[in-house]
Order: sequence, then structure tokens, then C-alpha cells
Amino acid sequence: MAKEKKAIIVGAGLAGSLWAVYLAKEGYKVTIYERRPDIRQAEISAGKSINLALSVRGWTALKAAGIEEEVKEIAIPMPGRIMHSLDGELTYQPYGKDGEAIYSVSRGHLNAIMMQLADDNGAEIHYNTKCINADTKAGIVHLESQDGEKFDDSADVVFAADGAFSAVRYNAFQKQNRFDYMQDFIDDGYKELLLLANEDGSYRIDKNALHIWPRGRFMLIALPNEDGSFTCTLFMPFEGENSFESIKNDEDVKNFFKTTFPDFYEMMPNLVENWHEHPLSSLSIIRCSPWTSGKMALIGDAAHATVPFYGQGMNASFEDCYVMYNLMKKHNENWDEVFKEYNERKPDGDALQDLSVHNYHVMRDFVGDPMFLLQKKIEAKFSAAHPDKWMPLYSQVSFSNIRYSEAWNTGMKQDALMKRVMDKPNIEEIWDSKEIEDEILSLIG
Amino acid sequence: MAKEKKAIIVGAGLAGSLWAVYLAKEGYKVTIYERRPDIRQAEISAGKSINLALSVRGWTALKAAGIEEEVKEIAIPMPGRIMHSLDGELTYQPYGKDGEAIYSVSRGHLNAIMMQLADDNGAEIHYNTKCINADTKAGIVHLESQDGEKFDDSADVVFAADGAFSAVRYNAFQKQNRFDYMQDFIDDGYKELLLLANEDGSYRIDKNALHIWPRGRFMLIALPNEDGSFTCTLFMPFEGENSFESIKNDEDVKNFFKTTFPDFYEMMPNLVENWHEHPLSSLSIIRCSPWTSGKMALIGDAAHATVPFYGQGMNASFEDCYVMYNLMKKHNENWDEVFKEYNERKPDGDALQDLSVHNYHVMRDFVGDPMFLLQKKIEAKFSAAHPDKWMPLYSQVSFSNIRYSEAWNTGMKQDALMKRVMDKPNIEEIWDSKEIEDEILSLIG
Repeated sequence: MAKEKKAIIVGAGLAGSLWAVYLAKEGYKVTIYERRPDIRQAEISAGKSINLALSVRGWTALKAAGIEEEVKEIAIPMPGRIMHSLDGELTYQPYGKDGEAIYSVSRGHLNAIMMQLADDNGAEIHYNTKCINADTKAGIVHLESQDGEKFDDSADVVFAADGAFSAVRYNAFQKQNRFDYMQDFIDDGYKELLLLANEDGSYRIDKNALHIWPRGRFMLIALPNEDGSFTCTLFMPFEGENSFESIKNDEDVKNFFKTTFPDFYEMMPNLVENWHEHPLSSLSIIRCSPWTSGKMALIGDAAHATVPFYGQGMNASFEDCYVMYNLMKKHNENWDEVFKEYNERKPDGDALQDLSVHNYHVMRDFVGDPMFLLQKKIEAKFSAAHPDKWMPLYSQVSFSNIRYSEAWNTGMKQDALMKRVMDKPNIEEIWDSKEIEDEILSLIG
Repeated sequence: MAKEKKAIIVGAGLAGSLWAVYLAKEGYKVTIYERRPDIRQAEISAGKSINLALSVRGWTALKAAGIEEEVKEIAIPMPGRIMHSLDGELTYQPYGKDGEAIYSVSRGHLNAIMMQLADDNGAEIHYNTKCINADTKAGIVHLESQDGEKFDDSADVVFAADGAFSAVRYNAFQKQNRFDYMQDFIDDGYKELLLLANEDGSYRIDKNALHIWPRGRFMLIALPNEDGSFTCTLFMPFEGENSFESIKNDEDVKNFFKTTFPDFYEMMPNLVENWHEHPLSSLSIIRCSPWTSGKMALIGDAAHATVPFYGQGMNASFEDCYVMYNLMKKHNENWDEVFKEYNERKPDGDALQDLSVHNYHVMRDFVGDPMFLLQKKIEAKFSAAHPDKWMPLYSQVSFSNIRYSEAWNTGMKQDALMKRVMDKPNIEEIWDSKEIEDEILSLIG
């Protein structure tokens, strides 16, 4: 009889539960330890009705795990974004070509579906069980149950999918010699608000779009939910002018929204209550290396938690699973070899951070800049005429499975090239001329 | 009667013991908790007979604490460095102007002197007592004695001087929201070797110099000890060609030294024993922010541990004490105000890292490059002629109290300017001409 294949996964969040589906389907006896109660029974954590944007990388990984169809049922396509100006004017920008879209999905709902599928395939999920520490060499995790009982479990292979504040990374990986680690908080915090559906259950604003109210140093975004509501997020600096700190009382809240997001303000009768119900949260990026140690690997946010400005956090985590799955097949479940090659994904984790931080600055500082919008228009036109020579960075990231590191490098080269094009004094007149097209062609070489 | 002023210092290393001297002299009841046994009685940790280079910043801080004279007695001046080429040729380069030198001091001896002075001034040192965690808001440290007894202590002001692997930073600061943190290991490790004195107690090589055997990707350095010996350090990559990994047995050790450091090899009959006696250690830099939280401040390596390539780790730590002391005077011991302004030193911590990593690359890749040496010669000549217009970066860092951040900025500007000068096709012929002097003058503007 073949030896039973056993794996432990720490954390039943998005990465952990998807990876459990993969492993369970491959015949592994999967044991998951999850700090929180069963998300399928418990209320989703208060004030955090997070919506995420699923794009091609995520779909690729879901498909390979055989659960694409189940997720499609709860996903709302957003083929473009709608910008809300101060005077209420709406501008629509498609994200990609016809038929391309990113998809709004509820984090909780998606997670529950994947847990159910892991369960159905035989994975064993222990809720309310906290991982305290780990011995990476021996493959042992030290656990604590809800009633304070401490116990250990071990396996030949262990995956730490315990999120941005990963206990395995923090208590085991970070104490190792030569483990590089960085946690960097950005200056902005965020607060979520729930824009309810109309009384008849219909959407108050266009369902099939990601809505943005860009206001320079701060912005509001909204993603559709299945029930007609929108999950909205205000990103703003913690301190300084126009900051969370500067909003001191209910009057300040009302005035801020009335003057900065007037159309949104009109739709939100329960604004002040909403403001108090939702916590103010911080945003950080994590870079670390290596992602494996002994019998353990970090996957998802534990390896590369990021800021949400490119909508790639979940997609990158799902891609981790997809990459790991392919390596597992390639190396015939020789985990030493799998882990060795999995670390070659580290440049993609770094590029994910570069992309996300870059887009934070783009959305903050450039999204309303006419010259930036013109540049994007020139790129789109050139790309449509020469799809083999130019894929816009956003499309590489969101509508392809090109490695993040490659996308980032290509994107930076495109940007340098476009700087030269945009430097032409009369670019605003000649932007859609043959001259510009030829110039780009010659610069590409 | 005035309220007793109480301070806790975690760690009796270089920063902790110097800061204890300052505080004790100012009338504080100082309690120090030190993980290790009393360095004055115990042997200095095996294999780590570390020597450090004391320069102006360090002396400034020691002088302000009133202990300059005590330290001078054990310090060996090194006015320049001696480079050992492969064929045994020696080249001398002064570090600064006449009368300027950096000083070799034994870490253990220096530490013992400062502990004694702290003790003499009334500080209470608890050895073999480990800090496990801290409550920064309340000013409480959680401690554990050698026999496992756990207890707490508290004070109005607490200083974490517990080194690169600071438990206070790790367990209290890093778990705070919005605490930025980075630990980055460089690709090189190091191993120390002890070059013994001649049998008559005399030095085998020039006592008054820092000796370097630069070999491109790796190097050996030696600093004099008081007893005629030299503490030598080999810096080399962990992996790859010419790496610690590539030296597998005693024959490899001998061959490596015989072919790469032949003159050194001749002086070291006990090379192989020495190689095995000393551990292979890693090198990392720490950046974090903020340096204070509630009633606690990080000082020394706990705030900004660095690589040793600019010889500034200890000097920066002593400067922390000097800066803190001046702020304490300025704000009349209002520690909230002191801590607030102490955080303005953070750019200097960052510049310390930039300088140290920069010098790592310089020593590794450029120190033998004729064009680099020519550039330094041009700079030295110009600086001698126009001391008001140009202070070489090394002098700003080692022979002045100019802020690290200012030195780094000036140094980078000088470097950019010198690139333009060095780009002249005939620079090797005209380097000491009036034309070049005038050109630099005009570039400075």
C-alpha cells in the first residue's frame, strides 16, 4: 500500500482554501488549521465586507483547480471603470479589449465556496485553532485550540497561508539567519463604507463597473455586490490636510463628503453611522526571502501581502497555488525540488509590490492628468494596431499570465519610450498621426 | 524632595553602557538588564575578539560623557590603511589630513570600561537577565532571570539598547500598527582570525594602520590589538566561486590563503586551527521607523544595525547617545519632546545604511580600480587647495560631526560632479592641471 500523503495548511483564507482544494484533489490527506471560526457559519468579520477584483491570473488558478464555474456564479464583470468628477460628470474607461473584464467577488463568499470544496474533497478543517510557532526543519506546527490547549501536528510538507501577519513567518522564518524581511506601511489608511441598494433591490449606480472618485491625494472607490449594494473604500492619508486625522466629528464627515463626493453623499443617507461602524485600517507591503524553509513554504499574503491598488493581491495568491501545483507535477511531488524552484517566483513577488506601489502613485497623482490620459490613449491605439508589438501594462497584469517580473520590466521600458514620445512639443495635435505610430515603431526597434 | 528620576536600559553593550554613564551622571537611578554575564569577569565570547574603529563621532560622544581619557589609553591610532597586493607589495593611503586618524579599540575592553564607569556613577546592572517583551505605552519590561524566574520592571523612560536582534523591537515595536521594518542580509559572510604577536610581543605588521588585502569580490582586513596581535576578518560570499561554501576542507583553507593572501599565509602557522575555532557569521542591515513608542526608545544597533564597511556602527550608536543627551538638555528632560525630536534622526540612520552599503560596493569592486584611485587623488588635491569648498566624503563621515544624511547627500553630489570630470578623455594626463581645478570650481558654482 502506498504511503499516505499528508499535508498541513496553516490558514483557511483565500490562498489556503484554494491550495487545499488542489492538494485534496491530488489525494493528499489535508489538515487545515484556521484561527477564526467557520466562515460558512459565522458572520463575516464586522466592518470588512471586502470585495476583490478577480482577473485572469485568478481565473487561471481556479480553472486548474476545477472550480471556475462555481466562482463564476458569484462574480460580477467590470469591463471598465467609471470616474466620478466633482460636478457629477461620469467618464467611462474600458480596462481592456472587448470581452475583457475584471470581476467583483465577495471575499467571504468566495472563501466559503472554496472551503466547502476542500471539505467535499476530504480536507479536514480545524477552526478556532491558532498556529503559534513552527519548526520548519522538522515540519512541526505548534497550535493552540480555543480553550487554550496546546498541541503539535506535523507533516512532510506544510504551507503557511496565514496571511499578512503570518505567525509562521513571524515566529519561525524571521528568526532564521539570512532571512530578508521588510514591512512597509504606506502613508494612507482606508475605511470601508457600504452603499446600500435601492429599496427595490436595484443598484444605485452602474453595476458593471468599478467606480472611482479620484481627488488627487485621496480617492473613493466602489465595487458591486450581488445584493445590489456596493462596497466602497475611502483611501486617504492618516495625517495632514484632507486626512483621517482632520475629520474630527460628525459634521466634518458630512462636510467632507458633501464637498468632495457630492453625488456619493446624496446616495448615502446613513453616512455618519457607516463612518462609525467601520474601522480605520492601515495598508502595508511585505517583501521577504526565501519563501521556503525546510519542509515549509509561505504562500499568498504570508509571502507578499500588498496594497490593493492594482487589484492583484488575491490574484497573486491564487497564482502561487497554480505555480506550486505545476511544480508539484513537474517534480513528481519531490517537495525539495518543488520548494527550490518555487523560490524562483520571488522576483514576481517583488514585481507585484513594484506594480502595486506604482499604481498607488498613478491613481493618486496621475489619473486625472490630461497628459497621462493622452499617453494611455496613444498606447491603446498603437496596441490595437500592433497587438504583437505592444500589450499595455494593465493588460499584461490583469488579462494575461505573463510573469509579473516580465510585465513590470516591459512596462518600465514602455514608459521610458513613451516619455520620449510625450516630450514632443506638439504631441497634443499629432498624437494620432502616422508620424507618431512610425516613431513608436522605430523606438521599439 | 524632588521625585527620583528612574530609567531602565535594556542591554549593557556599547550603546547601553555609554548611555548609562550619561544618565547616571545626570542623577538618574539607572537599572540595566543584560542578557549576558558580566563582561568584566567573564571571558569575551569565544571567537569574537572584535575590534572596532573609533572615529570623530564616537570621540565626541565619549568626551561629552567625560570618559574620553579612559578610552584613549586603550585606543591605537590608524592614520591610514595599508593595502597588501598579491605579490606582497604594500601601498599606504592616509585616511585624512595630518593628525587625523581612526582608532582601533577592543569591543570588550571598551565595554568593560564603560560598564565600570556606569557602576561607579551608581547605575545598577543586572546580568544574566533577559528581556522577553515590553509594554511600550506603560513603560514596562518583561524579564527573565537565569533561573527562569519571570518578573517585570517599569520606569518613566526605557531605552532598548539590546542590539541588532533587539527583543524589544522584535516583540513590542514590530507588532505595532504602522511600524516600518526591514532586515536585509548581504550576500557575504565573515570569519575572524587572530594573527598572533611575534614571540617577543612585537607586531608582525605595521601597528598604526588598518591592513587590507583587497581581492575584488572578497577581502581580508586586520586591526591591531594592544597585545601585539591583530584581529583579522575575511569577508567573502557564502556561495559561488571563491566562497565560504567552496572551502570544504583543511587543504582548501591552506590553498586558498597560500594563493590569495601569500604574505598573510606566511605569518599564520596556526591558520587551520584558527579557521575552525571561529564561526562563520552573517551580516545584515536593519532599518526601522519610528524609533520611539510611548515611553521607550530604540538606540544603537536596535535602531540601525549596519554592515561594518564604513566602520560607523559603533560611532553611530555613540552618536545616538550624544544626540539624545543634547535633546534631553534642550527639552529639560521632557521625554515626550525628546523622543519626538529624536525621531528626526531617522534620516541619519538611513544615510548610515546607504553609506555602509555603498562602501561595501566600493571596497569590493573599486578599491583596486586605477580610475577610482585617480578620482580620489583629484578630490584630495582639490580639497587641500579649497578646504572650504570640498570635504571628501570619508572625512565628512569619519572626521566630522556633520549629520550622516547631509554627508551622504553632499557625497552623492560630489560623485556626480566627479563623474563629469572623469569622463574627460585625457583625464589621466591633465588630472593635476589648473584646467581641472577650474572645471571643478565652475561645476561647484
